[in-house]
Amino acid sequence: MTDKLKGQLQFLAEADKMKNVFRQTRLADRSRQENDAEHSWHFALTAMTLYEYCGLSGVDIDRVIKMALVHDLVEIYAGDTFAYDFKGNESKESREKVSADKLFSLLPNVQALEYRALWEEFDQMQTPDAIYVSAIDRLQSFHNIHLSGGWTWETHKVTSDKIYKRMMPVKTALPELWEYVERVVNEGLEKGYIKPEVQE
Amino acid sequence: MTDKLKGQLQFLAEADKMKNVFRQTRLADRSRQENDAEHSWHFALTAMTLYEYCGLSGVDIDRVIKMALVHDLVEIYAGDTFAYDFKGNESKESREKVSADKLFSLLPNVQALEYRALWEEFDQMQTPDAIYVSAIDRLQSFHNIHLSGGWTWETHKVTSDKIYKRMMPVKTALPELWEYVERVVNEGLEKGYIKPEVQE
Repeated sequence: MTDKLKGQLQFLAEADKMKNVFRQTRLADRSRQENDAEHSWHFALTAMTLYEYCGLSGVDIDRVIKMALVHDLVEIYAGDTFAYDFKGNESKESREKVSADKLFSLLPNVQALEYRALWEEFDQMQTPDAIYVSAIDRLQSFHNIHLSGGWTWETHKVTSDKIYKRMMPVKTALPELWEYVERVVNEGLEKGYIKPEVQE
Repeated sequence: MTDKLKGQLQFLAEADKMKNVFRQTRLADRSRQENDAEHSWHFALTAMTLYEYCGLSGVDIDRVIKMALVHDLVEIYAGDTFAYDFKGNESKESREKVSADKLFSLLPNVQALEYRALWEEFDQMQTPDAIYVSAIDRLQSFHNIHLSGGWTWETHKVTSDKIYKRMMPVKTALPELWEYVERVVNEGLEKGYIKPEVQE
């Protein structure tokens, strides 16, 4: 076996650790927290299933799916940073960069650059592919939180304005889904597991 | 919201159940059994990472990845059938067909046909894409069983000839990986967690 192939098999072995990176979302049945590997699969399936509603031009669904598959790999060493944890998000960039250096160095150069570029593109959220990916990333979590009866929002006392702000890429990339977002937020406000915006 | 979109969101909610379908493989750290959602993600990442070793002509990696994402969905209602469970495999086809009818009926017609066709193509293992997908499916499990110290083979007393038979698509689709397969089987035989072929 070549060293190159050995490195790729080692990379795939490290990737197994995604199954132990737990997120601040629960399974639909609330039984436990979802992990990054499951999320990445559900996310890719969502991207594929809802692609017809994509309102952006120039989105390449095949690149989108690859981006979905690699977008959270850096969390293997950096851990998951909760979307509404503003302190954690300050150090996220540097932690994830160190993690990317370590993980992608197992791959041959061309492949390392490809995976890293997909992750950086996702992270910077500027291209049509990356905006659609961000919208789906947020929608998959949102849908799962809704299915689990708002566990994440209730536990972390998240207010409706914060949710709407986070869901903005959905308004841009999947305008037909916005009605669903509003309906879910209103239901959460009525049932009390989403807090109303705090008036200053 | 249209009934079509409602159905697609319901399909994605049902897909969450993949996270509770447990397989006869363990995570690399042996801590617990792997589930179908994690497997499907790891599988798609493996297909993408090892594509350069694909020895078949006419394989479309983008279709392969989509096939990987949907290939186990029918197990949501049919359950996972262990590869070496020959009795379970007798009823697998009918159980999975019922499951496919139930699950894919949530989707609009064109999409239901697309997902079903991808699953059937995988299941029949005749096209280059499906042969490569089968090879990767088996390789991902094989690699994880190896990483977990042979837990599955030891627990189910699997013999080396059964493993080689199951790994045949790897010989066909990923010939450069065959040396790795032989090395792992030989290591398992030496360490005793793979049993030698039973001489009749």
